[in-house]
Amino acid sequence: MKTIKKIKEFTLLAESIRKRGKTIGLVPTMGFLHEGHLRLIRMARKQCEVVVLSIFVNPAQFGPGEDFEKYPRDINRDRHLAEKEGVDYVFYPAASEMYKSEHKTFVEVEGLGDIMCGAYRQGHFKGVATVVLKLLNITKANRAYFGEKDYQQMMIVKRMVDDLNVDVEIVRVPTVREEDGLAMSSRNRYLDRKERENAGILYKCLNKAKDMIKGGEKNLRVVRTEMIKELEKNRYISRVDYIEFRNPLNLQEISEAGESGRSILVAVAAWIGSTRLIDNMVIKL
Amino acid sequence: MKTIKKIKEFTLLAESIRKRGKTIGLVPTMGFLHEGHLRLIRMARKQCEVVVLSIFVNPAQFGPGEDFEKYPRDINRDRHLAEKEGVDYVFYPAASEMYKSEHKTFVEVEGLGDIMCGAYRQGHFKGVATVVLKLLNITKANRAYFGEKDYQQMMIVKRMVDDLNVDVEIVRVPTVREEDGLAMSSRNRYLDRKERENAGILYKCLNKAKDMIKGGEKNLRVVRTEMIKELEKNRYISRVDYIEFRNPLNLQEISEAGESGRSILVAVAAWIGSTRLIDNMVIKL
Repeated sequence: MKTIKKIKEFTLLAESIRKRGKTIGLVPTMGFLHEGHLRLIRMARKQCEVVVLSIFVNPAQFGPGEDFEKYPRDINRDRHLAEKEGVDYVFYPAASEMYKSEHKTFVEVEGLGDIMCGAYRQGHFKGVATVVLKLLNITKANRAYFGEKDYQQMMIVKRMVDDLNVDVEIVRVPTVREEDGLAMSSRNRYLDRKERENAGILYKCLNKAKDMIKGGEKNLRVVRTEMIKELEKNRYISRVDYIEFRNPLNLQEISEAGESGRSILVAVAAWIGSTRLIDNMVIKL
Repeated sequence: MKTIKKIKEFTLLAESIRKRGKTIGLVPTMGFLHEGHLRLIRMARKQCEVVVLSIFVNPAQFGPGEDFEKYPRDINRDRHLAEKEGVDYVFYPAASEMYKSEHKTFVEVEGLGDIMCGAYRQGHFKGVATVVLKLLNITKANRAYFGEKDYQQMMIVKRMVDDLNVDVEIVRVPTVREEDGLAMSSRNRYLDRKERENAGILYKCLNKAKDMIKGGEKNLRVVRTEMIKELEKNRYISRVDYIEFRNPLNLQEISEAGESGRSILVAVAAWIGSTRLIDNMVIKL
């Protein structure tokens, strides 16, 4: 396994791999790898001849007052885990390598980037779309792997590559959960013991929605009210940013559960203490 | 020479060309070819093994009230000229092929797209950057050719491909002029006989700036005043949008002619009757 920090070096490498007719799989991450990331890597390992893991805590996707500085980092541990999973190349650029002082170009997916998490994290998805496009161009990936836990991010990336005709397949990989249902996330590291013990509540609350909808509840406002009650019962929940029901294919809002065969994305963002967590579930009717 | 209208077909073709190790040169145009375009094609023909001409009147770069509908089109003449110049492939997509109804993604080059022409044509350069990126991705071009006549456009495209790590070389090609100095443009077709006879005034006015600056005038406000006088003397000039002095490397404004060795971009946008014309000149001190 080789670690490369320079864009130019990686692009030349990628070009030579592509010329030899080999497929490149990219797993873009901000590092501090957990089992969710490893699942992405394993899927890439299965489907591609060359597996690239990028590790880059992207300043452009953090707003002012967000956790860019304290975001957990451990490159040595990450590289060790990557090597064990059979990663071929780690792309690990400095921020100054990715954003030169004269950088001025940003990508926006209008209408998808300002809803849900985008309404609470201004500019976040503009930063995500821009860095993902850069990483796709640098690594010349044939396939790129995204987790369903960040469902909105995955949909924005899919929309972007379709709209801009980027010749890459976006592969979606199911969320990996802890035993109590907590979706794996590098940010779980912020939780203290008590908060961690209570963090399974988001998944419980998604399951409550599933039970109600599968049980025949059509009015999603009623479902939302029950979910909020469930969350607010827990004294470790300090704030609920949103609970939303969306069409999983295009993120359009849904107010009523439709006919059998349709699917509903239920997405939640809530704070436990000073940590913001998100989770979601696609419910098939 | 082959004409291809479908994105998917072109992308597969381009991939197979790249795999055979051949270089692709793209000349992106809105059609209605003139000698300026042919110069771009000839340069591409000299430098690349496969030459692609794209013809697409891009709705996204026209504002409301602009000339999208009446923009001149003549695909048969264009194809004839392209064939004579040795173009290998014409990419000629429909608007519905380039922008699906669910299209949501746009590229912005902040700070370069809202000055000069961008201040008068809201959203224009966002449309340009977006379509150029799409065309580069579809054609997998190794090199793409842009005329210096649209200097700001060329600089925005250069900035975009650098910022987004698009692996393409942007080749700039000098402006081609009519005998009286009028820069070649498809929009010159809009001019009636009298207007056409007077349209050389833009070039004359750029030369006036050159003479003054080369003659030692340091104060560019004085130069601008003289240029405006020159333009306004001509009764066919119905409006002057701007006369600007910029650093040709980054489009930063310049108020004073600097030391010898430095260069100044002088750019002008003015209306002759109901036709908006632009022109520019780089003056080396």
